[in-house]
Amino acid sequence: MPRSQRFALGVEYDGSGFCGWQRLSKHGEPEREGEETLQAALESAISFVAGHPVETICAGRTDAGVHAACQVVHFDSHAPRDPRSWMLGVTSRLPPSLAVRWCRPMPPDFHARFSARARRYRYRILNRPVRAALGRQYLSWERRPLDADAMHRAAQVLLGENEFSAFRTVHCQSPHAWRELQDIRVTRDGDVVEVEVQANAFLHHMVRNIVGSLLMVGSGEKPEGWIAELLAGRDRTVAGPTAPPTGLMFLGPRYPAEWNLPEEVTL
Amino acid sequence: MPRSQRFALGVEYDGSGFCGWQRLSKHGEPEREGEETLQAALESAISFVAGHPVETICAGRTDAGVHAACQVVHFDSHAPRDPRSWMLGVTSRLPPSLAVRWCRPMPPDFHARFSARARRYRYRILNRPVRAALGRQYLSWERRPLDADAMHRAAQVLLGENEFSAFRTVHCQSPHAWRELQDIRVTRDGDVVEVEVQANAFLHHMVRNIVGSLLMVGSGEKPEGWIAELLAGRDRTVAGPTAPPTGLMFLGPRYPAEWNLPEEVTL
Repeated sequence: MPRSQRFALGVEYDGSGFCGWQRLSKHGEPEREGEETLQAALESAISFVAGHPVETICAGRTDAGVHAACQVVHFDSHAPRDPRSWMLGVTSRLPPSLAVRWCRPMPPDFHARFSARARRYRYRILNRPVRAALGRQYLSWERRPLDADAMHRAAQVLLGENEFSAFRTVHCQSPHAWRELQDIRVTRDGDVVEVEVQANAFLHHMVRNIVGSLLMVGSGEKPEGWIAELLAGRDRTVAGPTAPPTGLMFLGPRYPAEWNLPEEVTL
Repeated sequence: MPRSQRFALGVEYDGSGFCGWQRLSKHGEPEREGEETLQAALESAISFVAGHPVETICAGRTDAGVHAACQVVHFDSHAPRDPRSWMLGVTSRLPPSLAVRWCRPMPPDFHARFSARARRYRYRILNRPVRAALGRQYLSWERRPLDADAMHRAAQVLLGENEFSAFRTVHCQSPHAWRELQDIRVTRDGDVVEVEVQANAFLHHMVRNIVGSLLMVGSGEKPEGWIAELLAGRDRTVAGPTAPPTGLMFLGPRYPAEWNLPEEVTL
């Protein structure tokens, strides 16, 4: 039996119609109609190409309806294939909503989740009186005019190491709510307001809860200082509603340069 | 009976899953499964809101699978509604793939097709080894590396008043093939090569046939001077294949400023 090799894959997906990243069935078991997960679709394609069962670990699990520009996963295989043939072979076995962007052989101590030092997300809101038709899979919608500059200013208090209990869902399984928010910016491009945010890691629903509260500032319902109050209060029940998943895109994790991964996932 | 008023609508649509713009059934008749057209969907929504049957005229018909950022249509109605209530009311009766962006009352001599002085299209090609997953409804795919600068240079010979027989489909019903190409530019943004083109009017399949030939230049299969040869030869059978519809977006028509239409459709 040949020696096993670890590989990293950069995976792009449209999360519409999927039940999120994390496999719900046992590994190798087919999923029930309407309960398809991205992880199971990917593992089934990799296992077919490998010729043996393969399990994957991802950098950051995404919820139902959330997309990824570059999710990173790792897996181990002893199949004698080069990176290009993994990329093309696996993509050819994937449903149209998923594609492998690149594949790299990695040392055995690389771990898609634990080696990542940061994650970056983007949230897009179409801000006009009528809902989206074009690109509606990738946008949420707010009909009230939003003040993107006010949202940007209000968001800056979240920067740094903070306790983000006010922005985590009750279902979040993390032992504590301390995270380091490294960057958050709110910009407007025509009818679209965009929130980009980077942290060492995120709590469950953290981006969507931050966006939900920023929307209340942007619409004028709450003053700019309200975000600071929420953060200090650590009380999820008084913050804004969770923004819908369709506007959310996981841009990807970021790894230290020594892993020699593509630029888009390197710090 | 109140006097009839002419209205212009700016309509956005995702053409995936539609049989193109032009209604195939008789007006008011339901379309057969798999044969739905954008025109019938729009007319049915407008007629519901108007309370009487309404027919529309559009600025430029699009083929199956082609999208529009701002198609313009006109219609006449004696229903006592203001522009905002047409916009919201009609959108609420449309399938998710269509939305009305704006509505304007117009003088009776405005004609969505004949008043337009130009039309603008954009064609997007994902240029990388693997197909698209994200945004695949709005992209075509070329795996061979494309030289966008060579495509741009080659395309410039098409500018001006020319006889475009080399780039029209045999099904084109136009009495002649003379069109004025006002602008054509090919640019690259990362993995995406974009062709933007404006003319007074287009022949059937003209944009997709120009893109199909430019792709042969971009991939190195044909020299830059080949586009000039094709144009001069006026022979469709020697030009490149018709590029697929998914990459094509009708950005919209352009009208003289005196019509006071929104900036995006004004020359």
